[in-house]
Amino acid sequence: MSNDTTTPAPATAPPLGVGMVGYAFMGQAHSQGWRTVSRVFDLPLSPAMAAVCGRDPDAVRAAAGKLGWAAAETDWRELIARDDVQLVDICTPGDSHAEIAVAALEAGKHVLCEKPLANSVAEAEAMAEAARAARERGQLAMVGFNYRRTPALALARRMVAQGRIGTLRHVRISYLQDWLVDPDFPLAWRLRRELAGSGALGDLGAHAVDLAQHLADAPLTGVSAQTETFVRERPLPGGSGASGGSGGSGADIRTGAVTVDDAALFTGRLASGALASFEVSRVAAGRKNALRVELNGTLGSLAFDLERLNELEYHDQTADAAESGFRRILVTEHDHPYLEAWWPPGHGLGYEHTFVHQARDLLRAIAAGTDPEPSFADGLQVQRVLAAVEDSAAKNSVYTPVPLP
Amino acid sequence: MSNDTTTPAPATAPPLGVGMVGYAFMGQAHSQGWRTVSRVFDLPLSPAMAAVCGRDPDAVRAAAGKLGWAAAETDWRELIARDDVQLVDICTPGDSHAEIAVAALEAGKHVLCEKPLANSVAEAEAMAEAARAARERGQLAMVGFNYRRTPALALARRMVAQGRIGTLRHVRISYLQDWLVDPDFPLAWRLRRELAGSGALGDLGAHAVDLAQHLADAPLTGVSAQTETFVRERPLPGGSGASGGSGGSGADIRTGAVTVDDAALFTGRLASGALASFEVSRVAAGRKNALRVELNGTLGSLAFDLERLNELEYHDQTADAAESGFRRILVTEHDHPYLEAWWPPGHGLGYEHTFVHQARDLLRAIAAGTDPEPSFADGLQVQRVLAAVEDSAAKNSVYTPVPLP
Amino acid sequence: MSNDTTTPAPATAPPLGVGMVGYAFMGQAHSQGWRTVSRVFDLPLSPAMAAVCGRDPDAVRAAAGKLGWAAAETDWRELIARDDVQLVDICTPGDSHAEIAVAALEAGKHVLCEKPLANSVAEAEAMAEAARAARERGQLAMVGFNYRRTPALALARRMVAQGRIGTLRHVRISYLQDWLVDPDFPLAWRLRRELAGSGALGDLGAHAVDLAQHLADAPLTGVSAQTETFVRERPLPGGSGASGGSGGSGADIRTGAVTVDDAALFTGRLASGALASFEVSRVAAGRKNALRVELNGTLGSLAFDLERLNELEYHDQTADAAESGFRRILVTEHDHPYLEAWWPPGHGLGYEHTFVHQARDLLRAIAAGTDPEPSFADGLQVQRVLAAVEDSAAKNSVYTPVPLP
Amino acid sequence: MSNDTTTPAPATAPPLGVGMVGYAFMGQAHSQGWRTVSRVFDLPLSPAMAAVCGRDPDAVRAAAGKLGWAAAETDWRELIARDDVQLVDICTPGDSHAEIAVAALEAGKHVLCEKPLANSVAEAEAMAEAARAARERGQLAMVGFNYRRTPALALARRMVAQGRIGTLRHVRISYLQDWLVDPDFPLAWRLRRELAGSGALGDLGAHAVDLAQHLADAPLTGVSAQTETFVRERPLPGGSGASGGSGGSGADIRTGAVTVDDAALFTGRLASGALASFEVSRVAAGRKNALRVELNGTLGSLAFDLERLNELEYHDQTADAAESGFRRILVTEHDHPYLEAWWPPGHGLGYEHTFVHQARDLLRAIAAGTDPEPSFADGLQVQRVLAAVEDSAAKNSVYTPVPLP
Repeated sequence: MSNDTTTPAPATAPPLGVGMVGYAFMGQAHSQGWRTVSRVFDLPLSPAMAAVCGRDPDAVRAAAGKLGWAAAETDWRELIARDDVQLVDICTPGDSHAEIAVAALEAGKHVLCEKPLANSVAEAEAMAEAARAARERGQLAMVGFNYRRTPALALARRMVAQGRIGTLRHVRISYLQDWLVDPDFPLAWRLRRELAGSGALGDLGAHAVDLAQHLADAPLTGVSAQTETFVRERPLPGGSGASGGSGGSGADIRTGAVTVDDAALFTGRLASGALASFEVSRVAAGRKNALRVELNGTLGSLAFDLERLNELEYHDQTADAAESGFRRILVTEHDHPYLEAWWPPGHGLGYEHTFVHQARDLLRAIAAGTDPEPSFADGLQVQRVLAAVEDSAAKNSVYTPVPLP
Repeated sequence: MSNDTTTPAPATAPPLGVGMVGYAFMGQAHSQGWRTVSRVFDLPLSPAMAAVCGRDPDAVRAAAGKLGWAAAETDWRELIARDDVQLVDICTPGDSHAEIAVAALEAGKHVLCEKPLANSVAEAEAMAEAARAARERGQLAMVGFNYRRTPALALARRMVAQGRIGTLRHVRISYLQDWLVDPDFPLAWRLRRELAGSGALGDLGAHAVDLAQHLADAPLTGVSAQTETFVRERPLPGGSGASGGSGGSGADIRTGAVTVDDAALFTGRLASGALASFEVSRVAAGRKNALRVELNGTLGSLAFDLERLNELEYHDQTADAAESGFRRILVTEHDHPYLEAWWPPGHGLGYEHTFVHQARDLLRAIAAGTDPEPSFADGLQVQRVLAAVEDSAAKNSVYTPVPLP
Repeated sequence: MSNDTTTPAPATAPPLGVGMVGYAFMGQAHSQGWRTVSRVFDLPLSPAMAAVCGRDPDAVRAAAGKLGWAAAETDWRELIARDDVQLVDICTPGDSHAEIAVAALEAGKHVLCEKPLANSVAEAEAMAEAARAARERGQLAMVGFNYRRTPALALARRMVAQGRIGTLRHVRISYLQDWLVDPDFPLAWRLRRELAGSGALGDLGAHAVDLAQHLADAPLTGVSAQTETFVRERPLPGGSGASGGSGGSGADIRTGAVTVDDAALFTGRLASGALASFEVSRVAAGRKNALRVELNGTLGSLAFDLERLNELEYHDQTADAAESGFRRILVTEHDHPYLEAWWPPGHGLGYEHTFVHQARDLLRAIAAGTDPEPSFADGLQVQRVLAAVEDSAAKNSVYTPVPLP
Repeated sequence: MSNDTTTPAPATAPPLGVGMVGYAFMGQAHSQGWRTVSRVFDLPLSPAMAAVCGRDPDAVRAAAGKLGWAAAETDWRELIARDDVQLVDICTPGDSHAEIAVAALEAGKHVLCEKPLANSVAEAEAMAEAARAARERGQLAMVGFNYRRTPALALARRMVAQGRIGTLRHVRISYLQDWLVDPDFPLAWRLRRELAGSGALGDLGAHAVDLAQHLADAPLTGVSAQTETFVRERPLPGGSGASGGSGGSGADIRTGAVTVDDAALFTGRLASGALASFEVSRVAAGRKNALRVELNGTLGSLAFDLERLNELEYHDQTADAAESGFRRILVTEHDHPYLEAWWPPGHGLGYEHTFVHQARDLLRAIAAGTDPEPSFADGLQVQRVLAAVEDSAAKNSVYTPVPLP
């Protein structure tokens, strides 16, 4: 009755079972990556979305259905133990990264862990050590600094590596948001040190530091820093901070102390000799997700703004000065990084595509048995910088060395 | 052995079977839309990707597997006949739109048809008539002017409707690409009148005209036009235009005549009294996908550039002049159109999201039994404008009225 | 008592006496040019600001003192007759250009005449003929299309002439302002046909047409046009349009008819085969002085916006696509046109510098006895285009040829 | 014979004799200011350009003629002693500022001194003390931080003062140039500590610090800093660094040591509690004169880039988020600072206009007997910050307090 030629398999590549822990913002973004990657790219492995894990049974079941996971778990140890899970994808807050990642690696699973790698250097060191040991058994570990996979920043890295801007003199990164300008924004988990480790520093600064070290291909050797918390008390979440008539005695239970930074400023040196400057903030009114990167070298410069993520600006210092200037490269050409499989030139990508690209690169590394980047060791090195920033800020901004690998 | 709570259904909404004809650029983009829409939005119907259709059995089978369609067909009539297909999505070149769409509607299926609706006014009229008749039986039809679903342009429409820029005086749209600057680009189907209907006019101009009429909520009543084909002979595709040894007599079979326009310029009037200007080109060096829209009204202005698709510029003429200026609205807030289900502010979307939004709106209309927009009647009206443009260009640019609905 | 070395002459070059007619906006800008030019550039002639002419004795005397003219006249015939005036600079409304310019040329004076050259083709022809005759006697005539002297547009002209963007396909110019959005803006002389000739067309369109022909080095051969007057009645200037109690019979004397266009749209062809599109408006809310120019050629493109007048965007189509994009040339380098005598790179110029540059070029031409550009013949050719635009608009937008020189 | 109404005086306001020391870049810019100011603005005093001073008799005579000074002097003490000089304008390198300024003040003259005020805190203190003493005798002193007079930055100051952006949280200023990227650029006076005091820090950083304190209306209370000199040897100016055959022993006389910084990074605190970050560099490839300022407050933000000096970006955090965004204010309206006397909206100004505005404000202050801003005390405070920056950089970036006034 029909020319239906056969019901084709969803993909011809062998499957790799993925289990994900956490399904909030990051879990949703990762799900989009796993669901899409083999529909766009030709891959040696096809991700099978085996199970998602969360503590609330109803909520995790709903999330599984919504996001496309075949099963739901409520205990991450059960998720790790599943036979149909070969790769554990950790999308929880930073305080649980170390325990889950180490357990997964020890259970013989590959691991993708969201950034920042951990909430402390000690945890990160344990994770890097677990990754090193697992590597010998064939398990791979990767940390999710997804912005490396923005095509424009991948192009920037390629151009730096090709020597297009020569020897770096300046790396300049600011990452500005404004969701904490409102003093009535509640005391969410991201504002509590015991869960988040730090504030803008760990959330935004981790990206900034990773990108600096990645783009320059050199570690930061020391930093001088200041941090600040402008709004030190905030309403408790869910609480009715605006309710009247609570009386004097009840007032103190309706707000809580913010125990992380709102903003951090730091300067540093890269091992290559370049100067680096960083500014991260959640109180920069009007800046929504303004990750700006500028690299100045002896032969040229590159500039990027995440709010215009399909563009990379490039200045070629060796060209005729009368025709020189920063050029706006629309990073949508088929020979730009990650663009071979997407749309025609000029048809831009979005934020979530970084997670598709992350999935692509990790699946290829697993299939090939090569080391994915950024490694847990890279994540550890970022953590060391963040710790040095906090140390310097606590010690009158004195220049504080970062232990090198 | 596991807390696996149950294997959840992919989605809890009742399914709606979708069959797609064509799987090239548009088919891939539509597939991404169908695959993603219920993972992001809460919908009353869940699309089931039943079958995809193409003429080459091997290729369509591979495409089905790659893009996520459950079955493959080689005859669109078989696709339409399938019981598991309630909605036919037409992603073929324009010369086959009318035949497929009318057949699908007559077979009791809903239809989504790529733009332009057809290659001629006569075809479009037949399609609009078929849609009108089908509507009485409960079938719905929609034409795929996807750019309406760019959040920034949807916001522009909302602001115009709210009166934020007052009475429109100017609508100014240019859509510039550059892939035909290279004279060696081959004579693809889009450059042949019998397949594509027209060139930049039907491809880019159709979007421009639809957006003008949609954003202004008023039809064009007449146009004055010029068109041009700068490169009139091109190498045949697949042919080795550069190969030697073909003999003198064979040289003329290695290139063919371009029978569509490279560029079209036209001005017009909207029924509201506003002036409209249009310029579309495939030979505008350096412009990759530069759809630029500007609306000037008595109370303000709006401006948009598809190369920066997450931004809408807005000028409020009623504000204090000393603090006035075009403001760059980053259209990523949760109360912006389509943004309630995506990422936090500042995390931009890409080109393909317009197809997710198109799927969302059509599924909701089908579930509610309301008329989706743009309708086939809207598509017909665009076709009438394009025909008037060609008439005017053929008649010394004389102002040529557009028949109104 | 002092090492005062001598009182130096204001400038060592021989003087050329200048007399200026009119001292409103244009007269002030020209005065700034004459006052500054020999302080910045090394010139073969030094302008002596001999006298300024206006009808109101007190006002012209005050203007002379303010703007730096040595004397004031109330009759332009007297100004022309002065022995200390060798160059007559005409800054009056267009209706008096022809009479003054022809008289000045016949009196043996050089002439600089503001744009548009005249209010009609007939007047412009008479002026061009007078200039031709005067040329044989050694008198020179120049029309003040000052935007040619914006360094960025002069660079654009140089790059086109050098073949940097190849053969032109598109010229696209819009010139948008918004001072007539307000319906209470009074009926100034610029809104009355008998004084201004036309509206946005003659004021803004004259610049647009001159730039198109100048940058492309080719005349427009025909146009198709629409014009519109959105606000057809306006309060009389100085009148108390808001006053109450005027009674029914007096109402009609408080407003007057706008007899020129608010906006004009036209498309055309250049003799070179390029397509040209133009849009000029005084009702484009939020656009203050937005003269935008884009040129697309077979080898590249150039783009300019007068609101960012120190920048020229250039796209090189021959470069590696992966590193291509519009580059923002900051036109402030010493080897950019006119920049050899100004400030270091990055220190931008403003609007009025175009008048300094105009003065420089005219003084050099007079000293060298060469023909200054743009000539009265160039101004006449612009006038012919504007007349063809009005003809086309009156004849249903039909394509209307422009008589060539 | 003529209606020549009378030869008007150059200006009706009483004259104020100006004597200028130095006629290089700054002297040319100041001359343009003195020459133009009373032609544009209505002023209570009219500057008479009495004399200019320089060491080379021929060169200073030529400069006087070129720039419009009535006389030339070769000894600044003679200039100060002239009866026709009431105001001494100091445009020399920083090492001579203190001696000239103190002498001029003690001689009963008003003083305008270029920035930075001095090369050391001790000199600046002596100058501030001299200014304080002179003030009692009616003499006024002002330091030439001309960028305060950019209309866009003056508007920013006005908006901050009006509370438009609330309480400041962040001040972020970078000032980037690239003229030292080229390692063959010679060892000019600006690269020698004994003449220039410091490098990018004193030249660019002085502007940055002054603007931070001015815009925020609060002093910096401490800084943490790093500085760097990337190119430590440069060819001597005028020397033939590229010549061959000089022999080994002579090589060391052809280059010299760069004794100032190429770049400086510092963070700080304002007395108001805001965080401040600064980056200045002369090796930022492609940045020509990129002074960028951003202020983030509790109610909004402001952003500025000197390479687009007619624009100020403003974000209003209190507006509806769905219509919010940084708006590009074209600072060319008649009610913007300094714009009441210039051109119509949209007709931009340039770099040199800051010196016209500086002249205007100083002349008005002298006529009114009010204190001009920035005062020598303001200049001293900038100097203290620069000294603290150098101290911090020398002491491992430790946070270094700035002595307050």
